[in-house]
Amino acid sequence: MSQDEPNDFATALHSHARDVEALLRELLSSRPRHGEIARPERLLAAMRHGVLGGGKRLRPFLVIESAALFDADREAARRVAAALECVHCYSLIHDDLPAMDDDDVRRGRPTVHKAFDEATAILAGDSLLTLAFDIIADPAPDSDAGRLPVDRRLELVTALARAAGAGGMAGGQLLDLEAARSRPDEAGIITLQAMKTGALIRFACEAGAMVAGAARPDRERLAEFGSAVGLAFQLADDLLDRTAHAAAMGKATGKDRAAGKATLVDLHGAEWTRRQLSGLVGQAHDLLSPYGGRGSMLRSAAAFVAQRRS
Amino acid sequence: MSQDEPNDFATALHSHARDVEALLRELLSSRPRHGEIARPERLLAAMRHGVLGGGKRLRPFLVIESAALFDADREAARRVAAALECVHCYSLIHDDLPAMDDDDVRRGRPTVHKAFDEATAILAGDSLLTLAFDIIADPAPDSDAGRLPVDRRLELVTALARAAGAGGMAGGQLLDLEAARSRPDEAGIITLQAMKTGALIRFACEAGAMVAGAARPDRERLAEFGSAVGLAFQLADDLLDRTAHAAAMGKATGKDRAAGKATLVDLHGAEWTRRQLSGLVGQAHDLLSPYGGRGSMLRSAAAFVAQRRS
Repeated sequence: MSQDEPNDFATALHSHARDVEALLRELLSSRPRHGEIARPERLLAAMRHGVLGGGKRLRPFLVIESAALFDADREAARRVAAALECVHCYSLIHDDLPAMDDDDVRRGRPTVHKAFDEATAILAGDSLLTLAFDIIADPAPDSDAGRLPVDRRLELVTALARAAGAGGMAGGQLLDLEAARSRPDEAGIITLQAMKTGALIRFACEAGAMVAGAARPDRERLAEFGSAVGLAFQLADDLLDRTAHAAAMGKATGKDRAAGKATLVDLHGAEWTRRQLSGLVGQAHDLLSPYGGRGSMLRSAAAFVAQRRS
Repeated sequence: MSQDEPNDFATALHSHARDVEALLRELLSSRPRHGEIARPERLLAAMRHGVLGGGKRLRPFLVIESAALFDADREAARRVAAALECVHCYSLIHDDLPAMDDDDVRRGRPTVHKAFDEATAILAGDSLLTLAFDIIADPAPDSDAGRLPVDRRLELVTALARAAGAGGMAGGQLLDLEAARSRPDEAGIITLQAMKTGALIRFACEAGAMVAGAARPDRERLAEFGSAVGLAFQLADDLLDRTAHAAAMGKATGKDRAAGKATLVDLHGAEWTRRQLSGLVGQAHDLLSPYGGRGSMLRSAAAFVAQRRS
């Protein structure tokens, strides 16, 4: 990595986050879209609370930079990135509910059910999930920019649904809830994590290639890259959960251990985990080698995920 | 209406329900689809509990019969019908949660959060909503039957998202939760109901025309028919809520009044409501007049909805 790259990466991360934030704000405006009847203000306020003004926007970054690797339409990538962020934030809203992880704080602010109430939080999550599919399927009629061919949009709907649903993220959350009781072995933990956090990160990277209409080998390479990044993300998270203070994370920490849920860090220790992280970054970089210098942002992203401190 | 029709209608209602049930059972099998990692058995069991083995399947019936009006591919209509039923059942699962309507019984059986637990019920609802978009977007690769052109599938994804999301059903549920406090006037109640129950019924009827690729005036006529049926459905429901016993409804009754939520029946009385219902059935029948005898099933459906006793 050259001396300049870390700084470029930070700038790009911030810039993409701002672009996606602007689009999300627009998508969550009070004006009903064609086919909608009315948009209740309290529901929109809860959706905005859960989505706007927070987070590194890692998944959107991965969509946009994976798409850029293949010279895809930037506006189309931004839309898919916004849709994916809606799915990610819906999952956080529902995950924070008293019946699930019961968290009061997220990104240093009250969770949606604390700022509003439980029923509103449930409906805000439901509505964000629904909106995600709307965003991808919609032809973005105001301009030609961002208007993907119908077959690509449809493919993205299917891929997002499978990454997010019972066979992906939602299924992973269920396995995670069961983990305190079912005590999964190493293979079980890996599957759980590949579903709960891995599936959306993998989708983020593959989606960029899909937006671009890239060839199948490219799509598969980006999906594999996403799997490596997703696993690194989870290992770094588990490491942080063991060591970081709640203030640095902006959320409660150490809860998984308190709940008796084992992670790979518990099984193998911090040293092993750091070696794994380094190996995953190497693997991610290797997967990008066909793209030469064009892959530098994604290489930085993989390193960032593995090394993050919050 | 001829002497024979009511009986034909009952047979068709039963037969379509069985067809859709079979497809739902297949879609909720334990085998992961392409792009899924694993399907946790407990989550699938909760999804099946919420979807299979109950209900009149009115919305699927409306999809299938609206599609049949234009000679659409039956298998494609059955898939859209199944997707819509997933959305309907997800909304019931979340609506029954303690933070929402707090119901223990649905269709004479324990609600999903009683049969399982709250967290599983939240995730089962989320997963059914996600699956609905998967079903519509998926090319149904096993056969050519049911394989709609990509533009129609995409249009159905958008229309379903808008009927189900913040500007439709989910928004209506939020308004309904607020109603005890906000005390909406007549116009407010009509909007609330058009969103909470009307939007999906309207979508059901319009979707049939969309599956068939029918011309815009036909689609609009079917959507209007759906609006009339949706309003009739709600009026009949409010009437039943005031008069029926819980046993006949298979769920708790009289709760809206106890919560201080006014309905149109409360504002105008039962006699006015029955006249409205009769007017709506007439309007629905008029909308079908261009289709002559082919519209007889949908005409019976409108009458059935207005006259139902449970």
